[in-house]
Amino acid sequence: MTENKIYMDNAAATRLDEAVFEAMTPCYFENYAVATSEFGYSQGLEARETLAEARAAIASVLGADPEEFIFTSGSTESSNLALKGVAKALGTKKGKHIIVSKIEDFPVLQSARALEKQGFEVDYLNVDDYGFVRLDQLESLLRPDTILVSVQHANHEIGTVQDLGTIGRLCSAKNVLFHTDATHTFTRLPLDVRRIKVDLITVSAHTLHGPKGIGGLYVRRGTPLEKIADGGFQEFNLRAGLENIPGAVGFAKAVSLVTEEENARLKDLRDQLIEQVVAKIPLVTLNGDPQKRTPQNANLSFHHVEGESITLHLDMYGIAVSTGSACFSRSLEASHVMMAIGGDHERAHGSIRFTFGRYNTMEEVDLVVETLAKIVENLRKISPLGKQGGV
Amino acid sequence: MTENKIYMDNAAATRLDEAVFEAMTPCYFENYAVATSEFGYSQGLEARETLAEARAAIASVLGADPEEFIFTSGSTESSNLALKGVAKALGTKKGKHIIVSKIEDFPVLQSARALEKQGFEVDYLNVDDYGFVRLDQLESLLRPDTILVSVQHANHEIGTVQDLGTIGRLCSAKNVLFHTDATHTFTRLPLDVRRIKVDLITVSAHTLHGPKGIGGLYVRRGTPLEKIADGGFQEFNLRAGLENIPGAVGFAKAVSLVTEEENARLKDLRDQLIEQVVAKIPLVTLNGDPQKRTPQNANLSFHHVEGESITLHLDMYGIAVSTGSACFSRSLEASHVMMAIGGDHERAHGSIRFTFGRYNTMEEVDLVVETLAKIVENLRKISPLGKQGGV
Repeated sequence: MTENKIYMDNAAATRLDEAVFEAMTPCYFENYAVATSEFGYSQGLEARETLAEARAAIASVLGADPEEFIFTSGSTESSNLALKGVAKALGTKKGKHIIVSKIEDFPVLQSARALEKQGFEVDYLNVDDYGFVRLDQLESLLRPDTILVSVQHANHEIGTVQDLGTIGRLCSAKNVLFHTDATHTFTRLPLDVRRIKVDLITVSAHTLHGPKGIGGLYVRRGTPLEKIADGGFQEFNLRAGLENIPGAVGFAKAVSLVTEEENARLKDLRDQLIEQVVAKIPLVTLNGDPQKRTPQNANLSFHHVEGESITLHLDMYGIAVSTGSACFSRSLEASHVMMAIGGDHERAHGSIRFTFGRYNTMEEVDLVVETLAKIVENLRKISPLGKQGGV
Repeated sequence: MTENKIYMDNAAATRLDEAVFEAMTPCYFENYAVATSEFGYSQGLEARETLAEARAAIASVLGADPEEFIFTSGSTESSNLALKGVAKALGTKKGKHIIVSKIEDFPVLQSARALEKQGFEVDYLNVDDYGFVRLDQLESLLRPDTILVSVQHANHEIGTVQDLGTIGRLCSAKNVLFHTDATHTFTRLPLDVRRIKVDLITVSAHTLHGPKGIGGLYVRRGTPLEKIADGGFQEFNLRAGLENIPGAVGFAKAVSLVTEEENARLKDLRDQLIEQVVAKIPLVTLNGDPQKRTPQNANLSFHHVEGESITLHLDMYGIAVSTGSACFSRSLEASHVMMAIGGDHERAHGSIRFTFGRYNTMEEVDLVVETLAKIVENLRKISPLGKQGGV
């Protein structure tokens, strides 16, 4: 069923790399002991060493020490832990004020809303037309009782990369913790905690050809954080639960496979798609910043057409793309990201997100653009929106 | 390093079955779309169907409908969700009183303690010498403001199987929700929600040769439960996070591989070990009930010897067993389970837990007993505890 399909949606980055699979396999059949059992016997110690190596390898990419990185079940759990764990640690001590951007992904946004129900006060930062958070607004919102700022490294829909250095400095100057959701940038864009003053970083394996069900959270040494998953004392007593060692090993392997050359190649695919679409299809808007965007993301609005119609028609040609965010594509509501960057409903509903991964090729880009041009032309002919727009 | 080793600890049940591996593989390389994308394209729909099939297969083993079973990252998360989710849903409506047994595993016990810190009142049920909860005490503790009772199906250390039918009836009569942690019994012992009035059940794949990092929670239709992992709307809006479809498929496959014949075989291994140890080694106590115990568990105390010394010596022969619980084996504290069943410190510290899995054989049992007899004899010769005891 899935042969000859072209994935240019989230799944493009989700296909497991064969080398990751090979790295995970021994953890299933040979080195499968429980890491917390090292007290009793040598296989447990071996398992523990395997886990420690995976942890160290991932932490080092962030410029962090192994003790500053914990494994979780994915980026949703990581962001929940970052927001709620800081709230638990500081809510009764320092204050109940939190700042997040309006265009965060759902784990951050919904964790913030859950905290509001518990009596925390949340300010939602505005963004400009390209999706950059308003730094002047951030500065004016920071208060003595602010405990956390959460701004994503790059947006999951429009790819806009935030200025984490400046945000980190603003937070640090006011002694406020800073969390960033780097789910869509980890290994694709540099992020070094020795240079950027960020205290908590959400990462995940599923965006870089690693396994699903494993993610992580960087926690700068000394950061006040209380665990939210109670049980055993795993992960430096910050996250209870049997260690998913195959997942951790697969995550580390996936991280090791990303190269600068690959990121440059993804950027070429992205730019080729954007340039060709703009050249061949009239009335198209690129959403997000042309330069400061993740190498693997393109987001385009096709005016006078529904994104939903485009995705359904592309599907008939075996091409997978997304409209709206993955979490939200079951709903017909307009994307909160598109609305926050000043898009009207038409631009929001006509937006298509392309995600590039290791297995995409330039030939696929050419084929997708060609197919897209045909589809958009046909849809505009029959669209009531098109007729209203006079196209 | 791990060849010719004998696993009779938790890891015995953790080794992945090859058939599970084969079932998971296509989810990595072929059917790897994001299940929430079904709105946009057919691969997403395919992924969604795969997930639904896995869900239905697991739910049916519990006698449940697919809509009553959600996937989580493992039993720790499931138990956290059960306790904290009910507390969130009912804490301000019905009351703040919770009852758990003293011998629960850490996810339940520590979630209960976390709720105590939030103002909930928790009663800890006593158990008798075999580890059975005191049903008369349970009945007398149930109050109009009791929102939840959590009693495990069977104990993780001593294997004692609770009378869930009676506990369910007592709870139901007082309109109190009942959660059970069935991590160590799922598929090994029957549990049917059409016959037992239990509202929430924690299960996991890692105890039945399935993958790590995936578990589940049965939630009886209509049970008041609020999500604790915020983000997307996955899992009937009860658990946010990208669906771990390979994990779910592996879990379902693992469930399908367990047979009554296998459970009978595990019971034979267990009984053979217990009988031989008792016949060949003096001063041994079987911990837990001889009959009402999980087929895969034996727990024996060797008097006048430290369990720690036995495990270390067995390790030199390549044999892995546990002392205390997996979560606790890093600590030198006595097991809370052993203390609750009236064990003194000596009996607690001299206890060894054996867990049997699909790959254990009768020959391994004979070899382990023989080795154990030698080790215990030698240790007793040099043990100050042994001399005090006059052995």
